[in-house]
Amino acid sequence: MMHRMFVLYLLTFSLPALARQEDSLQIRAIADEILEHGRAYENLRVLTKQVGARLSGSAGMYKAEAWGKKTLEQDGADKVWLQECKVPHWVRGGKDEAYIAATRKINLDILALGNSMGTGPKGIKAPVILINSFDELELRKDEVKGKIVFYNYKFNNKLVKTFAAYADAGKYRSQGPSRAAKYGAVAVLVRSMSNAADNNPHTGGMNYNDSFPKIPAAAVGLRDANILAQLITDKRDVSVYLKTLAKMLPDTIGHNVIGELKGSEFPDQIITIGGHLDSWDPAEGAHDDGAGCVQSIEVLRALKAIGYKPKRTIRIVLFANEENGLRGGTKYAEEAKAKGEQHYFALESDAGGFTPRGFGFTVSDEQLTKIRQWLPLFTPYGVFELSQGGGGADIGPLNRTLKTPLAGLQPDSQRYFDIHHARNDVFEAVNKRELELGAINMAALIYLVDKYGL
Amino acid sequence: MMHRMFVLYLLTFSLPALARQEDSLQIRAIADEILEHGRAYENLRVLTKQVGARLSGSAGMYKAEAWGKKTLEQDGADKVWLQECKVPHWVRGGKDEAYIAATRKINLDILALGNSMGTGPKGIKAPVILINSFDELELRKDEVKGKIVFYNYKFNNKLVKTFAAYADAGKYRSQGPSRAAKYGAVAVLVRSMSNAADNNPHTGGMNYNDSFPKIPAAAVGLRDANILAQLITDKRDVSVYLKTLAKMLPDTIGHNVIGELKGSEFPDQIITIGGHLDSWDPAEGAHDDGAGCVQSIEVLRALKAIGYKPKRTIRIVLFANEENGLRGGTKYAEEAKAKGEQHYFALESDAGGFTPRGFGFTVSDEQLTKIRQWLPLFTPYGVFELSQGGGGADIGPLNRTLKTPLAGLQPDSQRYFDIHHARNDVFEAVNKRELELGAINMAALIYLVDKYGL
Repeated sequence: MMHRMFVLYLLTFSLPALARQEDSLQIRAIADEILEHGRAYENLRVLTKQVGARLSGSAGMYKAEAWGKKTLEQDGADKVWLQECKVPHWVRGGKDEAYIAATRKINLDILALGNSMGTGPKGIKAPVILINSFDELELRKDEVKGKIVFYNYKFNNKLVKTFAAYADAGKYRSQGPSRAAKYGAVAVLVRSMSNAADNNPHTGGMNYNDSFPKIPAAAVGLRDANILAQLITDKRDVSVYLKTLAKMLPDTIGHNVIGELKGSEFPDQIITIGGHLDSWDPAEGAHDDGAGCVQSIEVLRALKAIGYKPKRTIRIVLFANEENGLRGGTKYAEEAKAKGEQHYFALESDAGGFTPRGFGFTVSDEQLTKIRQWLPLFTPYGVFELSQGGGGADIGPLNRTLKTPLAGLQPDSQRYFDIHHARNDVFEAVNKRELELGAINMAALIYLVDKYGL
Repeated sequence: MMHRMFVLYLLTFSLPALARQEDSLQIRAIADEILEHGRAYENLRVLTKQVGARLSGSAGMYKAEAWGKKTLEQDGADKVWLQECKVPHWVRGGKDEAYIAATRKINLDILALGNSMGTGPKGIKAPVILINSFDELELRKDEVKGKIVFYNYKFNNKLVKTFAAYADAGKYRSQGPSRAAKYGAVAVLVRSMSNAADNNPHTGGMNYNDSFPKIPAAAVGLRDANILAQLITDKRDVSVYLKTLAKMLPDTIGHNVIGELKGSEFPDQIITIGGHLDSWDPAEGAHDDGAGCVQSIEVLRALKAIGYKPKRTIRIVLFANEENGLRGGTKYAEEAKAKGEQHYFALESDAGGFTPRGFGFTVSDEQLTKIRQWLPLFTPYGVFELSQGGGGADIGPLNRTLKTPLAGLQPDSQRYFDIHHARNDVFEAVNKRELELGAINMAALIYLVDKYGL
């Protein structure tokens, strides 16, 4: 135990005091710049209010790409370009509708799942079977044929970090439709992946297994899910009418939007900082992931504003198509590999623009040990946890392809699933200072990684 | 340095592993109870939506007292009583109005300051002098006579912990009117104590110095404050019309609402947990301080629900009149002293129902050292900082009178001054899980203080 403590002692104090003081002052300068002259919030306002929703293939996607290019140029990138990639083009096709076909019609607030096929304009009406888990589905597979399967798996409120609850519940959305279709279900309703107090349905991507029929699928708001479950539990025969007009059109062309500051000492070593530019269609994608985009741009702007000359090349990437295909992130890593680029480090912000708590890393234990020496430089700005495990969907391919070390900003997660993929993910749900504190900590991490290496 | 590390080693590991594990499980049980069966959010809904604003002396105050008594009884207090105290009875008297009397009338969104005197129904119109600080007031004191002094001192955005900015700016609200009246000002406008992105004015208490005339005073929304300041800076002659109907009526009777769980081993040692029941009139007092009230009640409910029998007597106190007099907290300490009560520890939650970050303490260094051993028990629930300095306005008199050690819950402070004393301090601004996590950490602290002592 003493040995461990001695190691901790070395780690805590191994950064020379003078360097520590200089770093502290530089990070204070970054913070002052962002808190006093920050552009992230105004950039987010323009993205959410003037561009709005921007799902892959939509008109909003192209407007968002133009916004990204212009904003990166205005906020100081040396060079800005678009990297083309094929993206899926799923459309909702019209208003989703559903109701419980009881004596008194009970409307259900639903959103078709991303990538799902519609019912057609006549809709479908069928009895509903309540399924609480995949285990229950297997046990009751003989009862499923001709029915609408309603997955009512609940978000686990006991998990303090809500992303753990999302990881736990998410499979019902992504795999649920095909697993029900396997046993003859005609459609799927899924309880929204959320612990909100309201009734907004939460959409999100799903994937069909090509071995089974592609049946329609929609998310139900939490209060309506409770009503539906209660009616079925009360042993009523419950039928639901469902109409969705969703369809998948042929792939189209989208782009990663990339802005660069050339490194002064190791220009071939690239540090990527990004978020994803696409967002679901029912809202403005303010937290998911407008926040990550404007924070990433703000890192570049602030480092430049305080006169910091990065040793390594800093690249801001606004990734295409995270939500329903990950084509942008995949393309970025493919091209990096094809060109033999050196990707030194990558940081993503895609967990909301809420007050920062920590960073999660996908790095070696030795690297994490080094990074943890920097903790006292972050705590004045709200980051107290530097832990193994983290990154981001868009930068994942860089790690898988090129072993690039990754980090992901971890904001407070309590409010995230109130708004995630729902109508209320709007600019007004973002707090200016929380957004800025995220950008400050991101810029501090990039400054330290660039200066000291990993 | 090694010595210091060795001390740290002892502190970190001095709680026996078995005790640590038992405590961890008990706190997990508290957390599960609150996250799964919590009553705080529903209690807050009733307080904010059915009672609403509850300033001292108002009808809302009496409704709130009845709500508090009933809720403490329902949520498991052995004994509930009201402790009478005199409270001030300030009334707004009607709608506050102000505009810049330019060619085109420009309305200003204002709220008269609490405890201020009104202009009378005719209002007053006078030239405005822009004053950015008390230093500037002293330099320009000869220009003040007959004018409205507009204090435009800005919230310091660079201070990451926003309460520090409030402490810095607050004197312009509390002392500004009398300091201007001293030099002949006829009224005061004060920039709202906030860093919000909106224009809601933020009221709050002020205190007249009896040596000078009691002139009207109001807070101005931030955007309007900027407009007004800009016009004056542009060297226009700016006059403002101001009408407020506020007045101070004679003192009336209010009550601290108190609920108790008798201690099993040291029943004479009292642990007080509280928030304040009063709130400003323009909103629902959801964060300030409905949140603290329902969290305090939730501590009692949850400890009882998991079957914990406190050694010491736990008292939940919903304090009267924090906002414009502190009569409730003062009375509580006076009576404690008069009765010779032993007040072992006191905890307040009065910084909003936002996600918890830490606790601030007013304790001896030895006590803080002991408390910090418990840190690993808090971090799974979001509390990472246990620091010297903190408590709460209502429990302050206990410390001053009886040297009672104090603690205050420190939630994330970024959003607090968006809603503080403004129209948007409503139930909808509170997140259920953030509120609950605050209650979990409070209950954990009380459990540990009760079990291990200080």
